[in-house]
Amino acid sequence: MPTPVYRVLISCPDACGLVAIVSNFIAENGGNIVEAHHFLDKTNSHFFMRNEIEANSLNITYEDFVKKFAVLAKKYQMQFSITSSEKLKRTLILGSNTSHCLNELLHKKAEGDLNADILGVLSNHNTIKDLSNFYKTNFEYFDLSKNADAINNKIIDYNPDLIILARYMQIIPANICKLFANKIINIHHSFLPSFKGGNPYKQAEQRGVKIIGATCHFVNEDLDDGAIIQQNIHRVSHNDNAESMKKIGQDIEKITLSQGVKLFLEDRIIVFNNKTIIFN
Amino acid sequence: MPTPVYRVLISCPDACGLVAIVSNFIAENGGNIVEAHHFLDKTNSHFFMRNEIEANSLNITYEDFVKKFAVLAKKYQMQFSITSSEKLKRTLILGSNTSHCLNELLHKKAEGDLNADILGVLSNHNTIKDLSNFYKTNFEYFDLSKNADAINNKIIDYNPDLIILARYMQIIPANICKLFANKIINIHHSFLPSFKGGNPYKQAEQRGVKIIGATCHFVNEDLDDGAIIQQNIHRVSHNDNAESMKKIGQDIEKITLSQGVKLFLEDRIIVFNNKTIIFN
Amino acid sequence: MPTPVYRVLISCPDACGLVAIVSNFIAENGGNIVEAHHFLDKTNSHFFMRNEIEANSLNITYEDFVKKFAVLAKKYQMQFSITSSEKLKRTLILGSNTSHCLNELLHKKAEGDLNADILGVLSNHNTIKDLSNFYKTNFEYFDLSKNADAINNKIIDYNPDLIILARYMQIIPANICKLFANKIINIHHSFLPSFKGGNPYKQAEQRGVKIIGATCHFVNEDLDDGAIIQQNIHRVSHNDNAESMKKIGQDIEKITLSQGVKLFLEDRIIVFNNKTIIFN
Amino acid sequence: MPTPVYRVLISCPDACGLVAIVSNFIAENGGNIVEAHHFLDKTNSHFFMRNEIEANSLNITYEDFVKKFAVLAKKYQMQFSITSSEKLKRTLILGSNTSHCLNELLHKKAEGDLNADILGVLSNHNTIKDLSNFYKTNFEYFDLSKNADAINNKIIDYNPDLIILARYMQIIPANICKLFANKIINIHHSFLPSFKGGNPYKQAEQRGVKIIGATCHFVNEDLDDGAIIQQNIHRVSHNDNAESMKKIGQDIEKITLSQGVKLFLEDRIIVFNNKTIIFN
Repeated sequence: MPTPVYRVLISCPDACGLVAIVSNFIAENGGNIVEAHHFLDKTNSHFFMRNEIEANSLNITYEDFVKKFAVLAKKYQMQFSITSSEKLKRTLILGSNTSHCLNELLHKKAEGDLNADILGVLSNHNTIKDLSNFYKTNFEYFDLSKNADAINNKIIDYNPDLIILARYMQIIPANICKLFANKIINIHHSFLPSFKGGNPYKQAEQRGVKIIGATCHFVNEDLDDGAIIQQNIHRVSHNDNAESMKKIGQDIEKITLSQGVKLFLEDRIIVFNNKTIIFN
Repeated sequence: MPTPVYRVLISCPDACGLVAIVSNFIAENGGNIVEAHHFLDKTNSHFFMRNEIEANSLNITYEDFVKKFAVLAKKYQMQFSITSSEKLKRTLILGSNTSHCLNELLHKKAEGDLNADILGVLSNHNTIKDLSNFYKTNFEYFDLSKNADAINNKIIDYNPDLIILARYMQIIPANICKLFANKIINIHHSFLPSFKGGNPYKQAEQRGVKIIGATCHFVNEDLDDGAIIQQNIHRVSHNDNAESMKKIGQDIEKITLSQGVKLFLEDRIIVFNNKTIIFN
Repeated sequence: MPTPVYRVLISCPDACGLVAIVSNFIAENGGNIVEAHHFLDKTNSHFFMRNEIEANSLNITYEDFVKKFAVLAKKYQMQFSITSSEKLKRTLILGSNTSHCLNELLHKKAEGDLNADILGVLSNHNTIKDLSNFYKTNFEYFDLSKNADAINNKIIDYNPDLIILARYMQIIPANICKLFANKIINIHHSFLPSFKGGNPYKQAEQRGVKIIGATCHFVNEDLDDGAIIQQNIHRVSHNDNAESMKKIGQDIEKITLSQGVKLFLEDRIIVFNNKTIIFN
Repeated sequence: MPTPVYRVLISCPDACGLVAIVSNFIAENGGNIVEAHHFLDKTNSHFFMRNEIEANSLNITYEDFVKKFAVLAKKYQMQFSITSSEKLKRTLILGSNTSHCLNELLHKKAEGDLNADILGVLSNHNTIKDLSNFYKTNFEYFDLSKNADAINNKIIDYNPDLIILARYMQIIPANICKLFANKIINIHHSFLPSFKGGNPYKQAEQRGVKIIGATCHFVNEDLDDGAIIQQNIHRVSHNDNAESMKKIGQDIEKITLSQGVKLFLEDRIIVFNNKTIIFN
C-alpha cells in the first residue's frame, strides 16, 4: 500500500518568493514533501507548482489545511486544488463498439494500476457489455437513435470527476464540454493537429506519412482541439494502408489513453491557455 | 570499395509473372542480384520493383542491357530506370543563413557517406560560404533583392540530377518544380501535414504538442505538400517553447534530410500518386 | 475475409538466378505473387526468400504444389516450408500469475487480430483462470510443487506448432527446447542482451539506464540467448525505480510479444545462425 | 542574450522542510527563481535540488551569496555547488581519427549552442586537425607510440572543468579518472550495459539485436561502467551488419554526446551512487 498523500496544485501570476511562501506554509504545518515540481511560464509570467505531501505528516486536519491554504491563495491570486490520493476520482467511461481502449483501462484497473472509482461504462453499442461485466463494471446501453441525449443526460446525473471517451466516436455537446471543462479525456487516433475529424488512418494513408500517432487530449467545444495531454507514435511504410494502420494504431491508442488517464488521476496536469503542464 | 552495382527500378500495372519475367531477364544476361524488393499496391493494382545487380556479373554492356530491357519494358508498360552506382548524381545544394543541414551533408560527403557529385552550394546569404569552402565545395552567392530569379536561372543552367534544399527558405517557382519533378528534396521543420508554412515551431508551441518532428519530402507546386520521404520525431514538453524546439529540431532536421538524400542517391525511392515507395 | 494465401519460405546457399528459378516455378503453376521478399546474407553467401501466393490462383492442388516444389528444392539445397493461411497454427500459451501478456493475446485473438488456433493456457497459478475462461479458452492448472514435469509432459502431448511463454517465468528443460526449436517464443522484460536472468528491472534501476526495453525471442537451451524477434523500448529517468519500471515495462512487454507472435503466425520469420530474418 | 543565472545544486540527507529552508534563503537575498527542480530518493532518503536564480536579482554579491550559503549547507550536511552561467566551463576535447562527434561539438559551439570555453582538441591522430583549425580551435597532436602518457600529462596541466572523449578510443588511466571524477564524459557506441568494450557494432550484429544505441556516460575506473547521462537508439534489421550499424550509429553517437555535454554545461547533472539525476 502506498502512503496516502495530498497533492497541492497551484497556478498563479509569477511573484518573487512563491516557492518559499508555499514551502514555508507546508513546513509550518508539519508537511513532508515527497515530490515537488515548479514551472515558470516566462512568456506569460505565470507560475505553476505541484507538491505531493505525506498525508500523515501534517499536524492539522485535511480540512483545516485546505482552509488555511485558501487564505494564502487569495493573497497571491492562486488558483489551487488540494486532493487526497485516498479519495478516488469518480470516473465514467464512454464506449462504443470497439473494445481495445476499454479493455486496457479495465485490465489496468483490475491490476491496481488505475486508481479510479469506475462508476460505469455508458455505450451506444452492446458490443462491450460482456467485457464490462467480466470486470464487474456497471454497463449501461443507450439507443441513441431513439434518444440522442440519453447518454448526455446520464453524464450530468452522475456528475463525475472524470469522463473518459474510450473511442466513443460521438460528438459531445457544447453544454457538457463546458460543464466538465478539462474533465473529459478523449483519445484521437492521429498525431494531432494532423488528421482531425473522421477516418484519420485513411487521411494518413492518402498523405503517405511515414509515422502515425495517437493523441490523448481534453475535449472542448472545438473538435479535436482541446489541450493535448500525451502523444505517441509508430513508424509505418508504403506497405501500410488505412486497414493495417488501424490495427497498428490500436496499440498506440490504448497505451496513450491510459497514460493520459493516469496523469489525470494523479493530479499531474494543469491546463493553461489550452495547453497542459504535466508534472511527472 | 563497394562492388559497382546497377539499380533497376520498375513501376507498372500489375500482371501475373512479373517477378519471373524480370528476374529471368536478369538471369539470362548473367546478372547476379544482390538485393531485390517488390511491392504490390493492391488498391491500385500497380507493381513496383527494385533490383540491385552486380555490374561485373552481366555478360553484356550496360548500354545493351538498358536497350534490351527497354523492349521488355514496353511490352509490360513498365516505367523504369537503370542507374549505375559508379555514376554519381550531379547534385546542387541550395542554402540560406543556417548551416546545420549543409554541415551535415558536406561532412557526410567528406566521410564517404554521401555518394553524390556536389556541383556546388547556391545561397542567398554568405553565412555558409566559409563552411562550403572548408569542404572544397563551390559556393555561389546570389543577391535575391537585386535579381529574384538569379538562383532559379542558375539551377536550370546546371540541370542537376538532384536539388537539395538545405533549409533554403525560399519558394521554388512552379516551372522549376515541374522541370525537376521528384528531383527536389526539401526538409520541412515540422511533422507534416501538421504546421505547414512559416514558423512551424511557433505553431507547435501554440498548439502544445508533446512531440515535434521533421519531414523530408519532394517539392511540388503546393507548399509542403510533395511526397514524403522520411520523418523523425523528438519528444518535447511544456518546458519547451519555439526557441528551444528550434534547437532540438535542428538535430532532427539534419538527420532526416541526410537520410532522405541517401535514399535518393541509392535509387531507393519510387514516387506514385504523390506518395513514396521506399525500398530499403 | 482476407484472400487465402500460401507462404513459401526458402533458405539456401546463394546461387545465380535463384529468384528467377523460384518465380518461374510459381508462374508456371499459375501462382499470383501478392508479396515477395528476398534477402542475401553476403557474409555467409546464404539466400532467403518469402513469397505470398494467392491460393486460388494456382492451377494445381496444394499437395501437388508442395510435391513439385520439393523436387526443385532438392536441386538447390533449399530448406523450405509452404504453409496455408487457412491452416491456423496450433498454439499453446504458458502463463503464470501475471495477466497483462495473456490478456493482450486473448483480446487480440477475440478481435480477429491473432490468427492462431489457441489450444489452451497451461499455468502454474490459477490467477489467470477467469481471464482464460472469459475468452472461452481452455485453462489447465498444474501444481509444479507436486510434479515439476507436469506442464512439460503436457506440452509434448499437445505437440503444438507454437508455444508462447506469456511471462511464464519457469525454465524450459533442454529436451523441450530441442523438440520445439524455433517454435517457443518468450518475452523477456529487458533490452537483451542487457539484464538477462532474474529481476531485470532491479538490474536496470541499479545500473541507472535511461531507456528500458522488452525482447521477444525464441527460446533455446541458453537462458535468454535465443534468436531475437522483436524489441521495443521506453524512456525512463532517475524518478523511476524497479517498481515503476515494472509497470511501464508491462505495456512494452505485451506489445512486443504480440508483435513477435504475429510475425510467427504469418510465417515471416526465418532463423539462421541464431538470428532472425524478418520479412515484413 | 539570455539573462545571466546562478545555478544552485544541492545533495543532502532528506529532512523535513528542506525546500522551504533553501527557497527562504534565496528569497531573503532577493533571488528570483526562474527554474527549480527537486528529487527525493526515497530508497536512500537522499534529497537533491537544483535552483536557477536570476543573477541580477540578488541583493548581495555572488561571493557573499556563496559564503552565506555555505553556512546553511554545513548545518544540513549539504553538498552543493553554485555556478554562474557567465563563467564558461574550461573544456578539453580528446579525439582520435573519426570526426563526426568533434564536428558536432565544434559546429554547435560555433552556432552558440554549446556554452563552453573550448581549451583545445588533444588527439593521437592528425585526421581531425583541419576541422579543429577551421573552427579556430587549438589542436595538439600526440604520438602515443613515443610517449603513452603525453596526453594524460597534458590533461593534468590544463586542469579543465570538463573533458569530453569524442570517440577517443584510448583507456583513461585510473589516476586521471580519480582526479577528474564526474568530469570526464565519454560516448560509447552501444546501448550500455550491452556490448561493453571493443567493437560493439560487431557484437550487435552477432547477437542479432533489433535496436542499437549509444550511451553518453561519465568515465570511471571500470571500463564503460560510469554513471549514464543519456542514451538514444535506432532500429536496425537483418539487413544491417556491423558496417551499416556503424554508419547509422554515428548519427546517434554525436547527438547523444552533445545532449550529455549540454546537460553538464548547464549544471543539470548530479551523480549519486554511480547514477545520474538529471534536472531538465
